[in-house]
Amino acid sequence: MDISPKLRLFVDSPLVEGDRLCLDQKQAHYLLHVMRAQAGAEVALFNGRDGEWLSRIGEAAKRTVVLSLERPLRPQAAEPDLWLLFAPVKRARIDVIAEKATELGVSALWPVFTRHTAMTRVNEDRLRLIAVEAAEQCERLSVPEVHPAQPLESVLAAWPSGRRLVLLDEAGGGVPIAAALAAGFCGPAAVLVGPEGGFSKSELDGLRALSFATSVGLGPRILRADTAVIAALSCFQALCGDWRTPPTVRS
Amino acid sequence: MDISPKLRLFVDSPLVEGDRLCLDQKQAHYLLHVMRAQAGAEVALFNGRDGEWLSRIGEAAKRTVVLSLERPLRPQAAEPDLWLLFAPVKRARIDVIAEKATELGVSALWPVFTRHTAMTRVNEDRLRLIAVEAAEQCERLSVPEVHPAQPLESVLAAWPSGRRLVLLDEAGGGVPIAAALAAGFCGPAAVLVGPEGGFSKSELDGLRALSFATSVGLGPRILRADTAVIAALSCFQALCGDWRTPPTVRS
Repeated sequence: MDISPKLRLFVDSPLVEGDRLCLDQKQAHYLLHVMRAQAGAEVALFNGRDGEWLSRIGEAAKRTVVLSLERPLRPQAAEPDLWLLFAPVKRARIDVIAEKATELGVSALWPVFTRHTAMTRVNEDRLRLIAVEAAEQCERLSVPEVHPAQPLESVLAAWPSGRRLVLLDEAGGGVPIAAALAAGFCGPAAVLVGPEGGFSKSELDGLRALSFATSVGLGPRILRADTAVIAALSCFQALCGDWRTPPTVRS
Repeated sequence: MDISPKLRLFVDSPLVEGDRLCLDQKQAHYLLHVMRAQAGAEVALFNGRDGEWLSRIGEAAKRTVVLSLERPLRPQAAEPDLWLLFAPVKRARIDVIAEKATELGVSALWPVFTRHTAMTRVNEDRLRLIAVEAAEQCERLSVPEVHPAQPLESVLAAWPSGRRLVLLDEAGGGVPIAAALAAGFCGPAAVLVGPEGGFSKSELDGLRALSFATSVGLGPRILRADTAVIAALSCFQALCGDWRTPPTVRS
């Protein structure tokens, strides 16, 4: 297996051998002025559909970079179908959530408003930028979809059949996460993490009663929302997701 | 079980019923001017030895707060004996590591210098402040010990017998973490996370050969050092630590 070049970009265009691809101004600026790349440099590309490709910088002018696609590095592979539903928190911690959830392999980021959610607006474009950057750095072959923020009730009302919901029950109503996940969650799943203030009593009763939900607990300490997100997604990937297969040997 | 009051402080003094306790200036300032607490307010106290106590603000002057100890809230309980050894990373991410590792219940934070560690100095006092604050907020009954930063080699040379080392092998030499931990780690353990640049080849060969070490992998994506710390500690607590017991019911 090839080692990816250090420069790695997510693009929208199809990736086909021999094609040439003109970067947008922002990505051109990043390559030339942030990463100080020059003509001839190798850049790995992925678009979420066509695997990872090796390309090379051909022309590089002030605001223009043209890349020539040389050869495939890795085929597109199936990834866990795991959504993260989370109550938006203040800026620094919502950035952490978007970055870490992307590294941890979620397929979708979905901000949801709950009764006790303090935030009333979410900048989805900003979340997507963070997700793209994290995907580029962690060597993912895809970028999680960022859903527009919605009330939790509406998301649950349109819940797709066959998708399990792992509910982080910070009030202590859940079973230990390893025991819950040991039962095996095959197929589509979602993790739901509430706001710093917790779910309301009636909201929690409603969630616990959902036929597709499993309430889990993360031990005796109070975790911040961003910690709980990372902890739950890590346990999911370790026990039910793509951390179960032996890792890629890199050296 | 009592619900802890919202104000919660770590103190050094012994906690004994009926005692009065004079806070230092910094904690007095925090209570009076940051949290705007007044005489009569309840404050939970813990010192890592005597459990959690309910106290009440008696006198509250400009720079002086005297607390009266009223009654015990929770007894001191055994906590997992889990060290975190980590290569120091730049400031924002080392802060995240100290905060999250405390929430995730480590008993010791130990910065270690590896071949590829870019940082040469660590502010242990700052790490301790972050750990104290995180312990106060997550309702821990202890604060992790912060060891002075040391070369990894020296720490390993004096390794205590009977303590297992979970080595995060980012080069892909480890077994999937859930499989490794399913074997059961009873007793003292430590998690070791290397620097952003990874371990050197010879360092990794040496680590893999240690009789007390188990190499583990965290899936196909490259995780940042702070993400890897949180992920590994979460899997440990879920599979071998104190997340296995049913959570405390809080509402």
